[in-house]
Amino acid sequence: MIVVIKSQTPASEIERIIQELSQYSATIEKVIGKDKVVIGLVGDTSVISPEHVQQISPFIEQVVRVKQPFKRVSLEYRYGEPSEVVVPTPNGPVTFGQNHPLIVVAGPCSVENEEMIVETAQVVKATGAQFLRGGAYKPRSSPYAFQGHGESALSLLATAREVTGLGIITEVMDTADLDKVAEVADVVQIGARNMQNFSLLKKAGATGKPILLKRGLSATIEEWLMAAEYILAAGNPNVILCERGIRSFDKQYTRNVLDLSVVPVLRGLTHLPIMIDPSHATGYSKFVPTMAKAAIAAGTDSLMIEVHPNPSKALSDGPQSLTPPDFVELMQELASLAQFFGRGTKSAFTTTPFATKTLSTVGV
Amino acid sequence: MIVVIKSQTPASEIERIIQELSQYSATIEKVIGKDKVVIGLVGDTSVISPEHVQQISPFIEQVVRVKQPFKRVSLEYRYGEPSEVVVPTPNGPVTFGQNHPLIVVAGPCSVENEEMIVETAQVVKATGAQFLRGGAYKPRSSPYAFQGHGESALSLLATAREVTGLGIITEVMDTADLDKVAEVADVVQIGARNMQNFSLLKKAGATGKPILLKRGLSATIEEWLMAAEYILAAGNPNVILCERGIRSFDKQYTRNVLDLSVVPVLRGLTHLPIMIDPSHATGYSKFVPTMAKAAIAAGTDSLMIEVHPNPSKALSDGPQSLTPPDFVELMQELASLAQFFGRGTKSAFTTTPFATKTLSTVGV
Amino acid sequence: MIVVIKSQTPASEIERIIQELSQYSATIEKVIGKDKVVIGLVGDTSVISPEHVQQISPFIEQVVRVKQPFKRVSLEYRYGEPSEVVVPTPNGPVTFGQNHPLIVVAGPCSVENEEMIVETAQVVKATGAQFLRGGAYKPRSSPYAFQGHGESALSLLATAREVTGLGIITEVMDTADLDKVAEVADVVQIGARNMQNFSLLKKAGATGKPILLKRGLSATIEEWLMAAEYILAAGNPNVILCERGIRSFDKQYTRNVLDLSVVPVLRGLTHLPIMIDPSHATGYSKFVPTMAKAAIAAGTDSLMIEVHPNPSKALSDGPQSLTPPDFVELMQELASLAQFFGRGTKSAFTTTPFATKTLSTVGV
Amino acid sequence: MIVVIKSQTPASEIERIIQELSQYSATIEKVIGKDKVVIGLVGDTSVISPEHVQQISPFIEQVVRVKQPFKRVSLEYRYGEPSEVVVPTPNGPVTFGQNHPLIVVAGPCSVENEEMIVETAQVVKATGAQFLRGGAYKPRSSPYAFQGHGESALSLLATAREVTGLGIITEVMDTADLDKVAEVADVVQIGARNMQNFSLLKKAGATGKPILLKRGLSATIEEWLMAAEYILAAGNPNVILCERGIRSFDKQYTRNVLDLSVVPVLRGLTHLPIMIDPSHATGYSKFVPTMAKAAIAAGTDSLMIEVHPNPSKALSDGPQSLTPPDFVELMQELASLAQFFGRGTKSAFTTTPFATKTLSTVGV
Repeated sequence: MIVVIKSQTPASEIERIIQELSQYSATIEKVIGKDKVVIGLVGDTSVISPEHVQQISPFIEQVVRVKQPFKRVSLEYRYGEPSEVVVPTPNGPVTFGQNHPLIVVAGPCSVENEEMIVETAQVVKATGAQFLRGGAYKPRSSPYAFQGHGESALSLLATAREVTGLGIITEVMDTADLDKVAEVADVVQIGARNMQNFSLLKKAGATGKPILLKRGLSATIEEWLMAAEYILAAGNPNVILCERGIRSFDKQYTRNVLDLSVVPVLRGLTHLPIMIDPSHATGYSKFVPTMAKAAIAAGTDSLMIEVHPNPSKALSDGPQSLTPPDFVELMQELASLAQFFGRGTKSAFTTTPFATKTLSTVGV
Repeated sequence: MIVVIKSQTPASEIERIIQELSQYSATIEKVIGKDKVVIGLVGDTSVISPEHVQQISPFIEQVVRVKQPFKRVSLEYRYGEPSEVVVPTPNGPVTFGQNHPLIVVAGPCSVENEEMIVETAQVVKATGAQFLRGGAYKPRSSPYAFQGHGESALSLLATAREVTGLGIITEVMDTADLDKVAEVADVVQIGARNMQNFSLLKKAGATGKPILLKRGLSATIEEWLMAAEYILAAGNPNVILCERGIRSFDKQYTRNVLDLSVVPVLRGLTHLPIMIDPSHATGYSKFVPTMAKAAIAAGTDSLMIEVHPNPSKALSDGPQSLTPPDFVELMQELASLAQFFGRGTKSAFTTTPFATKTLSTVGV
Repeated sequence: MIVVIKSQTPASEIERIIQELSQYSATIEKVIGKDKVVIGLVGDTSVISPEHVQQISPFIEQVVRVKQPFKRVSLEYRYGEPSEVVVPTPNGPVTFGQNHPLIVVAGPCSVENEEMIVETAQVVKATGAQFLRGGAYKPRSSPYAFQGHGESALSLLATAREVTGLGIITEVMDTADLDKVAEVADVVQIGARNMQNFSLLKKAGATGKPILLKRGLSATIEEWLMAAEYILAAGNPNVILCERGIRSFDKQYTRNVLDLSVVPVLRGLTHLPIMIDPSHATGYSKFVPTMAKAAIAAGTDSLMIEVHPNPSKALSDGPQSLTPPDFVELMQELASLAQFFGRGTKSAFTTTPFATKTLSTVGV
Repeated sequence: MIVVIKSQTPASEIERIIQELSQYSATIEKVIGKDKVVIGLVGDTSVISPEHVQQISPFIEQVVRVKQPFKRVSLEYRYGEPSEVVVPTPNGPVTFGQNHPLIVVAGPCSVENEEMIVETAQVVKATGAQFLRGGAYKPRSSPYAFQGHGESALSLLATAREVTGLGIITEVMDTADLDKVAEVADVVQIGARNMQNFSLLKKAGATGKPILLKRGLSATIEEWLMAAEYILAAGNPNVILCERGIRSFDKQYTRNVLDLSVVPVLRGLTHLPIMIDPSHATGYSKFVPTMAKAAIAAGTDSLMIEVHPNPSKALSDGPQSLTPPDFVELMQELASLAQFFGRGTKSAFTTTPFATKTLSTVGV
């Protein structure tokens, strides 16, 4: 940490500042320039708050943090080695990680009834995707909008899991529902609006379940990593970071702006695996295929894509959901692009006859 | 609701769209222009989701909501009459409302120990402010930062309340803590990061306690009002809206941008009372007095101001806290400005001898 | 300037970096910590580009600028003394500055014809305002929208000036029009969209005319001050900074967000006088009176307010223009508020009979 | 255009509004609902300003534009056919367009001297890229930073063009320099800061030269298209739209946010070809290769990439420039990815021996 002292600060005040700084367990070094005095705090300064230091004296011009404020999520914490999040599913363990094939999570925004979730799960399974998503508890901006079927939706997800063997990803919104959700979910999702719901982060961390942490609508990358740090600090290293679009000044043609540059940026900062959600980011199904491909080219480890058997009848987020035939077509394109980038998977689309059969069975 | 059909849509498709729209309990009217067909849905369309309608056909160009999506918080809901939120405190009932004197809430970011909170409360009381703020549960971006003293801080707030008679405003972050917080707090605060924590909104609404709802960092005014709508829909009409700065592209000199135009905007949309928090908005105590005055000129009903007996030793948000002498001075200026705008209060600074005595006692 | 070296950088690389840094005319000081090495560059580092230094070695973690990048606009440049921009007008010199009465600039968005501009000028004059604004060259987002009457509008402004004695403020958009504009205008305006039109800044600076520099839609405060620095560096110290609202994520109820905290922030950074434009900031005339008052409370030196004899027939920006009667009423309120803050002016509203007569003449 | 009337508006006022609306040459149709009256204006409403209509009466709740405000840039204007911008260069005509191979523009931020620009041009040529970029006039936020070598840099660009046969793309900042720039440039660039410099747009349009129009830092897609409309309205259909990153709330790790979703969005709105500039968008050369690939996957027609023979000595934007060897490597990867997407070019990297020879000659 570096403390820059204002020009023409009296020597006695500088001494007082140094005195105050000596309360921290860090070595103090003073640099005297022509114009400015700069004080370096060296040692483990991660526990020292810059705002605290700033308050010591009005003669302090600037306090500069040199070390990053996150530890456990940092790339250095694993000596530059990317981490792998291995999720056990009925179909076998699935690994999210930089040196692993692309993972696809797909499904409807919310679980509406048994038929639709099982049908969708079968389509998802047939394309080679590994996880089914589906909301039981839905964060909706209006209290009058469909809020999700809650517990009963969780049991429908359990059914879909049983039928297809897919892993389940579903969102928790309230610490009170955490146990119920964690019982059914293979990966527990914390949504964008709750990214800084610190109580939820701590308690979700304590469950030990893999956590999918969506980036907040206007969360900086540092804030997002600090939110993940809450989960790791609670003893849970299994976190996947999901970019789902950020808020901008222009909402006319897309709901949010998909910030794909997070992929290379995060690679330099953290060992955690990355997911991209082009459905929520753009808000329109017609833009999803293009942005899914761009995400693969940017190097994402996984994708989350909304699919609904009948988007125009969806209880939520219909406009951004692909139909099953469109999803099947997209998955074929994605598989070949993933292959191009060396992130192809053996399972996907190799059992075409089965896939076709399943698809025809489910009426695609 | 207005449904704009694309140019050159086949007549049969338009008929199909009208067929689909007839599922809603609204009257349908068709306008045929030279270029475009427009369909109007008239009646109670507040329950119809525009995104739902959009999905009916790819030939739909635009769906325009004509009515606002909020009801209970709308000004029309009270026939243009501003509402009053009356909060019982030991010193008597305090009323937040457009036709009432300016209310001031002050205190430290977080409750640190008994001495500091009681001392601060006495300063706050002496200036004529009506509420003490102080965090027991603190949302901090780092898991390694001070998280608040929790339950024990709540009991210190109760002590400060007893000693001074001030009302207490403190934040709840987790539905699991709601009962404990509601027992001590006269007004329960929901913070900016939890503005769209819909579980918390519903359960906080159910307590019946007055709720202070802070605007999210990048929440639109409509989203903010919809969050308040959650509380009113849960049966609780006692909501105060608090602007605390929004996130912008420039964080170099202020933490956030204080959006004072919300005051006149909200006046045209809602009956709910308004609070402005210049401390969190700017992030620096030196900007607080100026922006507090601007807020009064903009017509706010109340102010929230951070005060700390020793900002440089504060466990959180020291840089934005005023010292007691600065706060006392500011309150005198604010009182005279409020008077200028016809929002003065009888009690404030009328008992100067007492105030002086109290202040000297607490070592200001 | 401070150069932070990454942990575990080889000593030889640090020596190489120091070697490279010695090309700059600054003294180099090295601080060796437990974890990090930090190099200080002391002396006149304002000419050194941080990005340049960053490129010296991949082992450089961060380059921190300690001094501000602006010089002539900085408060230090005038030893903490606010500057005064004195503008000669037919009615006598008008001074913009922190220790001077509030100045008001008013008029229509664009000059439409002689009658309307002269009538408006008479209303403006009658209220005690000192300057007439009116666009001859209009930046419009559409090429099909009214682009201003150009040169002929300039001569109408000259007429209005002659008739009323008011100073004239009008915008220049093209370096090619600078001479023509400077001939008529007492203050030349550079609009928000041209804030970083550096050719225009340089050439406008060279005219020596007082310049009103509007803040760009998403310009940081530092970028804005650097734009002003261009004008001062061209030898022209007469710059007024005008905040007119910044772009945010929410455009539903106001066109932009009026960032009033720039007033106290700029006071600590620059000696230049400040203007606030609530008309462009909010985009709706109904919000203008409230925000004009808030601007005075925030300490602005001047206001720019749109007035149009018939807003519903205005060729541009009608919705944000006040009618003459509303403007007259507002000016009375502003005068009394300015008085409250010690920024009142003798002239305003003292010659009521004349004012009334003029107003009745012009049909208000 | 749709005009929504407020509930409980008197019938006489509605009649007055209709009266006023009849001044426009559009057919008026009235829809009477239970709650609201809606008035449709049908016909050519593109010349009617919504703000104008809004001003007709305070009883107008909302004015909704149904048609897009742009015409000549719209996809409909060319009946859904993408346009081709053919640029003659010494090496032959190069076509920018959706059904053509990927075009690459590369070069330094600014032209520093003959040796560096010719060397860079040779590297660029050798990789199969078609255009050399290089700034003669540089928009810099500081007046004390290098402003470009101006006219002499233009003649160095002419030399590089002669030596390599590459097309030249360079920026114009001032209408006064337009002729000089247009003489040398094969494509004239209008930079992000000048996107709404409407004088420059009009005059650049009048030159007839192909124009590269960069998106403003916080320009909406509609504003960007309207800026292009200025050029087309001036009679010049040869416009290429270049996304170069938008301003967001997070500037810690990237300079801007590259908004790749503009590619699919623009495809649905306009016939104009698209370019992506990952260098300015991210601000760091280490992120450029990844984002260039993502841009190809998103379907861009062309890329602009900064290359500098010695980035650490660059007079501007060094941190975002690739070195020649890194650029050569990247071009090989891009060529193979473009091929994958059916946008490969015959010429690139087919003449490997020559390429190698050239590269060794220029000391890569």
